[in-house]
Amino acid sequence: MRIEVLRIGHRPQRDKRITTHVALTARALGAAGIKIAEADAGLVKTVQAVAARFGGTFAAESGTGWKGPINAWHKAGGQVVHLTMYGRPLGEAMPDIRNRGKDVLLVVGAEKVPGELYQMADENVAVGNQPHSEVAALALAIDRLRAGRWEADVFEGGTIEVVGTARGKQVREKRQGKGAASDSGYA
Amino acid sequence: MRIEVLRIGHRPQRDKRITTHVALTARALGAAGIKIAEADAGLVKTVQAVAARFGGTFAAESGTGWKGPINAWHKAGGQVVHLTMYGRPLGEAMPDIRNRGKDVLLVVGAEKVPGELYQMADENVAVGNQPHSEVAALALAIDRLRAGRWEADVFEGGTIEVVGTARGKQVREKRQGKGAASDSGYA
Repeated sequence: MRIEVLRIGHRPQRDKRITTHVALTARALGAAGIKIAEADAGLVKTVQAVAARFGGTFAAESGTGWKGPINAWHKAGGQVVHLTMYGRPLGEAMPDIRNRGKDVLLVVGAEKVPGELYQMADENVAVGNQPHSEVAALALAIDRLRAGRWEADVFEGGTIEVVGTARGKQVREKRQGKGAASDSGYA
Repeated sequence: MRIEVLRIGHRPQRDKRITTHVALTARALGAAGIKIAEADAGLVKTVQAVAARFGGTFAAESGTGWKGPINAWHKAGGQVVHLTMYGRPLGEAMPDIRNRGKDVLLVVGAEKVPGELYQMADENVAVGNQPHSEVAALALAIDRLRAGRWEADVFEGGTIEVVGTARGKQVREKRQGKGAASDSGYA
């Protein structure tokens, strides 16, 4: 099952870091790519630079609009799942979404989303009914869709990789590359 | 098992929204409270305002420092779990953490964390070995610690509650209160 993310309502001035977290979370949990409805070339560059260093084949683009990607996803036979606090509970909706076996486009908004989105989505899924974070909602949704299997993903290529250890840090150069990972690994 | 969150390395100018997402995620998934090592009274007020509207008993404070809360947690018999991309894999570490049956202080850094933290923590846990987001890492860690049971949590009190529906939004006034939820539910 292919998973992609569509980010809408991104305001480059205000949301740069949150949307970066959305994109990196999508990548780390094995989504194939992210489309950002609004244009932000700098953000795409940041995400692509991480992908180049750490490997894998994550695709990021911005300025795609939101109706076009949703219509294209539907046309290709996929299902569109909108993450919101106003939807069906995650635990109830996810088994249905998985059982359909169709590719999933996960749509995450910022503060405001167009009302029409609730109608265009095949599913509106609530990751809890409390206000929190689209980054958290996305992480939990992908984790459930993939039943935790992202932990075993291998990111081919790139220049460095991190090796998990109980204490301290271990970063391995895959081949000649520049730069070291940041201390916490969080952007 | 009581879960609390300690946020370190918060830079008020740069991290306000990410740390707000950390705090709201902690609350939404049922953590008892958050301590932010660095002072940011405005952020604490924002989180407390959400808690007042949506109910529950989430405690937020800032300017706590980080060694003090870690030492106090240890003294009270709890375990300290640092989320980082450089730790033991989540799937391997979480069963051990749960089996100990001790309260958990989850420590999440921003870009940089003090090296000493890796030694003071009982566990350094990697939520994947790819760079992503402390918001996502926290969500996945609490979800695993609580085996998804946060979805059934009830937040007593507050003035409004959201009722999950397949289409559109439904917000119920618990009692006379002001304000409506934002459209997506994400800060």
